[in-house]
Amino acid sequence: MRHRLPNRLVEGYSGFRQTRFRREKDHYAELAAAGQAPEVLMVACVDSRVAPEVIFDADAGEMLVVRNVANLVPPYQPDSNYHGTSAAIEFAVQVLEVKHAVVMGHASCGGIRAFRDNHLKGRVAAPGDFVAQWMEIIAPATELALVCEGCDPLEDQHAMEQAAIRQSLRNLRTFPWLVERERSGALQLHGIWFDMADGTLRELDEASGRFQPLQRPRFT
Amino acid sequence: MRHRLPNRLVEGYSGFRQTRFRREKDHYAELAAAGQAPEVLMVACVDSRVAPEVIFDADAGEMLVVRNVANLVPPYQPDSNYHGTSAAIEFAVQVLEVKHAVVMGHASCGGIRAFRDNHLKGRVAAPGDFVAQWMEIIAPATELALVCEGCDPLEDQHAMEQAAIRQSLRNLRTFPWLVERERSGALQLHGIWFDMADGTLRELDEASGRFQPLQRPRFT
Amino acid sequence: MRHRLPNRLVEGYSGFRQTRFRREKDHYAELAAAGQAPEVLMVACVDSRVAPEVIFDADAGEMLVVRNVANLVPPYQPDSNYHGTSAAIEFAVQVLEVKHAVVMGHASCGGIRAFRDNHLKGRVAAPGDFVAQWMEIIAPATELALVCEGCDPLEDQHAMEQAAIRQSLRNLRTFPWLVERERSGALQLHGIWFDMADGTLRELDEASGRFQPLQRPRFT
Amino acid sequence: MRHRLPNRLVEGYSGFRQTRFRREKDHYAELAAAGQAPEVLMVACVDSRVAPEVIFDADAGEMLVVRNVANLVPPYQPDSNYHGTSAAIEFAVQVLEVKHAVVMGHASCGGIRAFRDNHLKGRVAAPGDFVAQWMEIIAPATELALVCEGCDPLEDQHAMEQAAIRQSLRNLRTFPWLVERERSGALQLHGIWFDMADGTLRELDEASGRFQPLQRPRFT
Repeated sequence: MRHRLPNRLVEGYSGFRQTRFRREKDHYAELAAAGQAPEVLMVACVDSRVAPEVIFDADAGEMLVVRNVANLVPPYQPDSNYHGTSAAIEFAVQVLEVKHAVVMGHASCGGIRAFRDNHLKGRVAAPGDFVAQWMEIIAPATELALVCEGCDPLEDQHAMEQAAIRQSLRNLRTFPWLVERERSGALQLHGIWFDMADGTLRELDEASGRFQPLQRPRFT
Repeated sequence: MRHRLPNRLVEGYSGFRQTRFRREKDHYAELAAAGQAPEVLMVACVDSRVAPEVIFDADAGEMLVVRNVANLVPPYQPDSNYHGTSAAIEFAVQVLEVKHAVVMGHASCGGIRAFRDNHLKGRVAAPGDFVAQWMEIIAPATELALVCEGCDPLEDQHAMEQAAIRQSLRNLRTFPWLVERERSGALQLHGIWFDMADGTLRELDEASGRFQPLQRPRFT
Repeated sequence: MRHRLPNRLVEGYSGFRQTRFRREKDHYAELAAAGQAPEVLMVACVDSRVAPEVIFDADAGEMLVVRNVANLVPPYQPDSNYHGTSAAIEFAVQVLEVKHAVVMGHASCGGIRAFRDNHLKGRVAAPGDFVAQWMEIIAPATELALVCEGCDPLEDQHAMEQAAIRQSLRNLRTFPWLVERERSGALQLHGIWFDMADGTLRELDEASGRFQPLQRPRFT
Repeated sequence: MRHRLPNRLVEGYSGFRQTRFRREKDHYAELAAAGQAPEVLMVACVDSRVAPEVIFDADAGEMLVVRNVANLVPPYQPDSNYHGTSAAIEFAVQVLEVKHAVVMGHASCGGIRAFRDNHLKGRVAAPGDFVAQWMEIIAPATELALVCEGCDPLEDQHAMEQAAIRQSLRNLRTFPWLVERERSGALQLHGIWFDMADGTLRELDEASGRFQPLQRPRFT
């Protein structure tokens, strides 16, 4: 073997084995034998700072997690192309019958920043510009009209990140079998936005369209 | 708001805030201010039992994580379709200049099982069968010839999971700018396979094509 | 060396090194260089199920922790015997000037159970019966009158555990320099009782003498 | 209630409840029902930087932990005084029949530093000087002859911390029922020394009298 796994990963894995895996090995073995049955589908960003399992202290088996650039859901396109995110949604909703689908955005999103830059500068994505093409998913979002050259860039970035979450929820609802489950009450959709600068989490109130700080938890 | 975030997520987030985030809030604030600079791109599965940040005890900021069904990398296709995984690879390699790209497979993979079932039964993916279409990415893998009806299903499943990792590495090397970085020594590719039943991690030796148990770590 | 440290401890230490210590090594190095400055003195039991650092998710450096059988504080005895707990209290209050002294009891306390058994059976501690002698510290507690043969043993045990906490607080107030600091407002005393069966924590209200469930935390 | 538990403790407890306790509540409930059965007695220091459960990543129920200033074991004194540490040893060895008794010292020990200062300056402990009196437990240690005014203070401090561990092991062996169990092979004694500055752990080799770095762990 020419290259070995970086030492940092070897040590991190070793740490996992000797701490959390040791403590939870029965749980892992049960999950291996019985298969997974998560109740939550999380659509999150690839960003290295926003791991959903960390932010929600999730147990193994609790959430199916799709991660792509900017946590986008493309619209339903039943053609013969590869649709990685749609495959995950199909697997979560049709096969595993999750009860919740959560689109989780975050502050400082590089994909959104790239989209905003291109948008302001009138750049058009060329074939093979994978990030730029991918970010076109949010172009239909009418809220993006609020993006303006004179605005406070941080505020504008946050507004666009949140508009993208709303657009992904709209796109989720273009999947016919998903809508059916939402209508029947078997599935609930949620939009959330995390700011790693101070740890706040905001939840979308779809009635008002606004993202509101999470209510304080009940103590149990 | 009609639906609220499930209580389990609210409590998990609250736990994160009061334990890990509290302890690492300076680190998160620095990462928010300075931006991310991960050295590792991890291509992992959406499966709820194999969170890379847990298995490698990763810190915030350490690894960019793409997660799709069966941790696949599609081949380089510079057209105008949405290529979510390719966008993440472009972002990791071209923008963030990661030093390692790791394809992480695992035992009990539902995507691989679905592919194997379809394969054995001669089923063809119809448009809109997102999982089946997506799994076609591994169809070119010649190793799949070993899939056979008479074989031990578990052994066969593991062989196919590992063949899929090799195929994804091959596909990674169809991205011209990625190959360039690998050739210059700026980027290393790795294939690993995790078995949650007993916690073992195997690493692909590309010379022999075999997955070998991780060597024991140096004590530091 | 005839005997080696048990493997479980070696692996646990190795896990600590590769997870928490790795993440906090700068904090540990600072604490080593600057010395400790905890704000809390915790008087807790030796019981293997009630580690204060775990139950309060304490950081290194946060609490000085004395642990003896049944989390007792003996009365002030300025003689020339060895007074281990009093030495810890002196160190915490006089040298480190902690702001809080907490006596932390718990359900299922073996020391309290032994005392209760001896008490009911009229057994007297012989010299060299270290546990029995040590538990005599709580004998002056008038609340112990409530211990009765006909009572519900679990309720009785809990009542006695809580009476012991009140007695330890009384004994803490026999240390003249500690009382002085409490009077000046520099030090606050607290009594708490933890039940590992369901995770509840109760806090002593000294006005009423009752242990009340902890109020729910503010969300921050 | 005049004073409330400090907010930091309330939040830390809340974090524990929502993360570790949530994950391990069945284990805690079993421990509550079945009683504890630890295999290890740990004699450790009250120091806020050296929590044994953290350093050994211990599970609830794994180790009975006595903590006093400088992790000392006094000699066997079967009189009618309060002997908190001896009570814990009796409980661990006679009642719980632990298999290992570990004396765990550490660098930067305030109790050892106080003893060394008094020793160099010829100060005598007065009645009511609880720390000074308590530290007299190590006065018989002949190794202390190496303490000298001209020496490197840090090296000298470490030597004294390690001499104290050897003295505590000697004192452990003055308990007749403990020696009996050691002779029969039912109990093993260990001395270890932790340096939080760099995380190293050293283990006493009683044959040579030297503290040696822990061997690297086997990977499991």
